[in-house]
Amino acid sequence: MLRLNSRDPGFAQAFRRLVRDRRESDENVARDVQIILDDVRNRGDAAVAELTQKFDGHTLAADGSDWRLPAELCREAFDALQPELRAALELAAQRIRTYHEGQKPADRDSTDAEGVRLGAVWRAVDAAGLYVPGGRAAYPSSLLMNAIPAKVAGVERLVVVTPTPKGQVNPLVLAAAHLAGVDEVWRIGGAQAIGALAFGTERIQPVDVITGPGNAWVAEAKRQLFGVVGIDMVAGPSEILVIADGYNDPEWIAADLLSQAEHDPSAQSILITDDPLFADTVADQVGIELALLPTARTAAESWNSYGVIIEVASLDEAPALANALAAEHVELAVDDPEPLFRAIRHAGSVFLGRHTPEAIGDYLAGPNHVLPTGRRARFASGLSVLDFMKRTSFIQLDAAAMRAIGPAAIALAEAEGLPAHARSVELRLGI
Amino acid sequence: MLRLNSRDPGFAQAFRRLVRDRRESDENVARDVQIILDDVRNRGDAAVAELTQKFDGHTLAADGSDWRLPAELCREAFDALQPELRAALELAAQRIRTYHEGQKPADRDSTDAEGVRLGAVWRAVDAAGLYVPGGRAAYPSSLLMNAIPAKVAGVERLVVVTPTPKGQVNPLVLAAAHLAGVDEVWRIGGAQAIGALAFGTERIQPVDVITGPGNAWVAEAKRQLFGVVGIDMVAGPSEILVIADGYNDPEWIAADLLSQAEHDPSAQSILITDDPLFADTVADQVGIELALLPTARTAAESWNSYGVIIEVASLDEAPALANALAAEHVELAVDDPEPLFRAIRHAGSVFLGRHTPEAIGDYLAGPNHVLPTGRRARFASGLSVLDFMKRTSFIQLDAAAMRAIGPAAIALAEAEGLPAHARSVELRLGI
Repeated sequence: MLRLNSRDPGFAQAFRRLVRDRRESDENVARDVQIILDDVRNRGDAAVAELTQKFDGHTLAADGSDWRLPAELCREAFDALQPELRAALELAAQRIRTYHEGQKPADRDSTDAEGVRLGAVWRAVDAAGLYVPGGRAAYPSSLLMNAIPAKVAGVERLVVVTPTPKGQVNPLVLAAAHLAGVDEVWRIGGAQAIGALAFGTERIQPVDVITGPGNAWVAEAKRQLFGVVGIDMVAGPSEILVIADGYNDPEWIAADLLSQAEHDPSAQSILITDDPLFADTVADQVGIELALLPTARTAAESWNSYGVIIEVASLDEAPALANALAAEHVELAVDDPEPLFRAIRHAGSVFLGRHTPEAIGDYLAGPNHVLPTGRRARFASGLSVLDFMKRTSFIQLDAAAMRAIGPAAIALAEAEGLPAHARSVELRLGI
Repeated sequence: MLRLNSRDPGFAQAFRRLVRDRRESDENVARDVQIILDDVRNRGDAAVAELTQKFDGHTLAADGSDWRLPAELCREAFDALQPELRAALELAAQRIRTYHEGQKPADRDSTDAEGVRLGAVWRAVDAAGLYVPGGRAAYPSSLLMNAIPAKVAGVERLVVVTPTPKGQVNPLVLAAAHLAGVDEVWRIGGAQAIGALAFGTERIQPVDVITGPGNAWVAEAKRQLFGVVGIDMVAGPSEILVIADGYNDPEWIAADLLSQAEHDPSAQSILITDDPLFADTVADQVGIELALLPTARTAAESWNSYGVIIEVASLDEAPALANALAAEHVELAVDDPEPLFRAIRHAGSVFLGRHTPEAIGDYLAGPNHVLPTGRRARFASGLSVLDFMKRTSFIQLDAAAMRAIGPAAIALAEAEGLPAHARSVELRLGI
């Protein structure tokens, strides 16, 4: 854990280093991924089957009969959930759905003083693919957070791909797929699954947008296919910035820092506080809670390698630091968070006040938990209904409207050396 | 030019080929671009200067004094415009601004029955970079279409990079930069300019989003830097689909097809009509107009290589074909375009009725002319104010709200094996 103090002479430099510090894997998988994608494009299902055997140790039936997990199986997994967990998943789905319904964009259609009708209509993409990792990172909450916005957008065909290493399926993920209304679940993963979704194969129809988290191969495959399909933002390790005064319960704040750290050894938890004593107590408390935590191995690795506590003279310094960090999650653990919140320009999601731990946003507050990481909140937003929709603009002129604005178009077309552009307008003006 | 008839037995197959036909360059510049980007990242301005010398044949002053074009020069270029052209540019800027003002998203802030406050705020990115090609493709209209949405979004620092081959600047582009309120103009281009914008150099501060058209190197540089900065959609050659009945003036429709063809030898113009005689007349008319067209060389190459006329038995067949083509521009040249428009799901922009040539949208109708090409309208939208903004969601609970939804979060955290997540909620519930 790194301890900084904004009053120290070396602070500016140390903080700049912290901002620049990249925790993302530089693993160069571009070439491997390109080979896999070319193979899937050229050989379709045969390539997918071979690569699944190779990477997942799972043999897909030659007749294709077990490539898809039947909807029945997902329903059964859902019905088999413990009642408390089922109710929790249902509450999460309902709250996520309600929040995302509010994101649906409005169409526009109006006619201006010159008689030019202008507008735009939003429509869902026809089909979306959702990657769900196998193993440790297979979270039902992640499935809900990706699938529900697609369904709210109106996507008619929502396809999940998920590896089943050695044939093992994750019943929680299947249950969430049922609840979210997923239309197809294919037991394939890795770059080959992304290729199958983008290009289509004999068995798998292509999709238009691919979202969802994955390992370095999956992320690189999405990056290479950007433009062939739509994709969500590149995602790196998760991070939290907690801005807290000395009036918080140090136990609460320590738990919040650890809730981020337990995700991934590369996750980062940062505390900014104006109270040196509080900083010490939180640091101690992290140690105490780590001793009891079943996920201590991951959490300790993250906290020891990337954890940071920054003492500032006043919390007024915090927004500038927060904007430079542009963190995925920002907690404002103070009585009145509004002034700080107004000053923070760059953040994925902000958690206001002492009673809003980040974990509540991971599961069921409502807003999406797929958020920009690694300073991408400077330019990117969390996943939303808009990622599964697209806008078509439209224009309608009549003869009078053309008389009003056509001559200017002719002048511009001529200046740009595009005479056929000018001609198409002149003809309508009887020139 | 390819002639198809939907009644022919081979039509389905021929149309499928047309849909799959890629007109995009497969030029493999990835490796070259990677080397350039690494060089700019490592050596900054020194690399930029050397690469500008090498690719643009232009020597940038060692003291940096002539790297930026002064704002003064842009104002002078604007003042020197012929009055008619200046008025046309001003009308275009005003109409584009008005339309894009209507795209500004609303913030959300509400508290639900459980006492959970949820919302989202939209903010502009701090800085945006806009690539403006040198030479033939340097269009002032393109500068307005990229710069105005950024300024409407509220971007405080808008930076243009544009190569000045052998030192030549384009006064029309400078005039448009003045009109659009561009803050900085740097005379650099190619992948090196994209690298300088993304990483920053000693002289050039980095930006958060990069948009604007460019050659294969520029497009690949943007693709490689996706995630380091935000970028607009990959753009390929332009295309138009005209759906027209037999009651149009064939001269008008021929001019519309050629207005697309004159952009680029790889551009594509497609006509769908239910009137075989009209189809013949338009084909003849294209030949007649080509003979008179100053841009005939480009337009003829495009029309001969990629032009298509499709005869259908009824225009009712057209929307299904249009949806498969998902064209950048779609003209509906019929008396009542509404039924066709409602049936078209995938298109960049639609031009309604006989008096709306595509060229009017290129210059000053108002909607953006930066539109998805190459079937990307299936999942992508035209450039908009949203490309220069990002959304921060927020969540606020009090103790009562936490009592209402906290227990479900604990159940989900435990099911996902994330005990510190559960703990951060339990502590707030006094568990």
